[in-house]
Amino acid sequence: MTLGKHRWVIAEGYIPGSSTGSGRAFESHETTCILNASERDANVRITLYFSDRDPVGPYTVKVCAKRTKHVRFNDLKDPAPVPRDTDYSSVIESDVPIVVQHTRLDSRRAELALLSTIAFPGD
Amino acid sequence: MTLGKHRWVIAEGYIPGSSTGSGRAFESHETTCILNASERDANVRITLYFSDRDPVGPYTVKVCAKRTKHVRFNDLKDPAPVPRDTDYSSVIESDVPIVVQHTRLDSRRAELALLSTIAFPGD
Amino acid sequence: MTLGKHRWVIAEGYIPGSSTGSGRAFESHETTCILNASERDANVRITLYFSDRDPVGPYTVKVCAKRTKHVRFNDLKDPAPVPRDTDYSSVIESDVPIVVQHTRLDSRRAELALLSTIAFPGD
Amino acid sequence: MTLGKHRWVIAEGYIPGSSTGSGRAFESHETTCILNASERDANVRITLYFSDRDPVGPYTVKVCAKRTKHVRFNDLKDPAPVPRDTDYSSVIESDVPIVVQHTRLDSRRAELALLSTIAFPGD
Repeated sequence: MTLGKHRWVIAEGYIPGSSTGSGRAFESHETTCILNASERDANVRITLYFSDRDPVGPYTVKVCAKRTKHVRFNDLKDPAPVPRDTDYSSVIESDVPIVVQHTRLDSRRAELALLSTIAFPGD
Repeated sequence: MTLGKHRWVIAEGYIPGSSTGSGRAFESHETTCILNASERDANVRITLYFSDRDPVGPYTVKVCAKRTKHVRFNDLKDPAPVPRDTDYSSVIESDVPIVVQHTRLDSRRAELALLSTIAFPGD
Repeated sequence: MTLGKHRWVIAEGYIPGSSTGSGRAFESHETTCILNASERDANVRITLYFSDRDPVGPYTVKVCAKRTKHVRFNDLKDPAPVPRDTDYSSVIESDVPIVVQHTRLDSRRAELALLSTIAFPGD
Repeated sequence: MTLGKHRWVIAEGYIPGSSTGSGRAFESHETTCILNASERDANVRITLYFSDRDPVGPYTVKVCAKRTKHVRFNDLKDPAPVPRDTDYSSVIESDVPIVVQHTRLDSRRAELALLSTIAFPGD
């Protein structure tokens, strides 16, 4: 099945620097959810843009054929971790068509806040 | 009225495994809201994608002509229930044009959190 | 300026039947935010779709040239009020191009929950 | 890299007039997040539309090449500050392609509420 696009943009980006609650599930985080519904593995490259410095990347992620991967920006390490409490944007590029959705869970206060949107398909 | 597309993608998917509050309204859930504004009944097939196993589906849903159906992923049973606390994505296919929107209500904490986005139209 | 489309769809729709807090600002509500950036007044027709009955409408709304109108579904009365705690979808049609965004504020619990998405452009 | 569109619309707009918590991070606010992934600086013009008065603007913002800027509507001052507790819409225009996402943080109650959506690409 061919479904999706090769390039996607998430213009919003901000990982809250604090959390309440315990465990990974309740840690403040941002996620790029990637679906690869095709028959071929996807080699995905993520580039981060900032307000006051050059872009950082690419971060490389493999999403196997007929699989989804929910990538936490918090977990990206190479070439550099994603700074907290910092505005950024991201561009996601793949060699096979994928679909991308952006989600944030904010647990800085005791109760959760969520946001989500389908990313912008760049081509 | 012809309105919508035949294929839709929700790349984010995650049903929180716990809830606070009583009753169906406050149970943590995810929904695919489907509008069939056409004159013909829609035969809808939902396929779920996971990070570590083969896709599951199709789940079949009928949305009558000129009706909406808000399908809770929590309620899908056949061919298999949707696991909680698990990342997934979904592809929604229909034989007549439909419009799809994704919503999550998270009541793991005492207060509610909500997210929603129009799904990605695949064709 | 010509900006937007003539038809829009909001597949999700649900007005929570209760609220906490006082005043209109904190009442649980759903809104269709309409921008008419054109030089001509827009005659807008909203039709509501339900899961178990025929569509209701059109509700008629005028959005003047170069103005925005944030229409609360709670306020629609003619031809019939919108039932609470009930799944619905809406189709918004205009004789001039407009842009539509959907928002819900849920105050059933003491703290607020919000969702929003750009609607689906139908043509 | 050419990525994005020259015109974007955010039909929803509303800056809550009160906040809880201390500091800029927790102040109720609305943001237009702009990514300029191109090689050229972007000259961006924002025009605000209201329900009962003429449009206000343009507000001018420069987004340098390969940079993101998360512009708070709260911070716009020239030609006029953005009124609080007031419905508005915004049109964002740029001389190079950009991508725009809309976000609100509402801290009127003690806990946060968030919403976000990719804006509507006008061309």
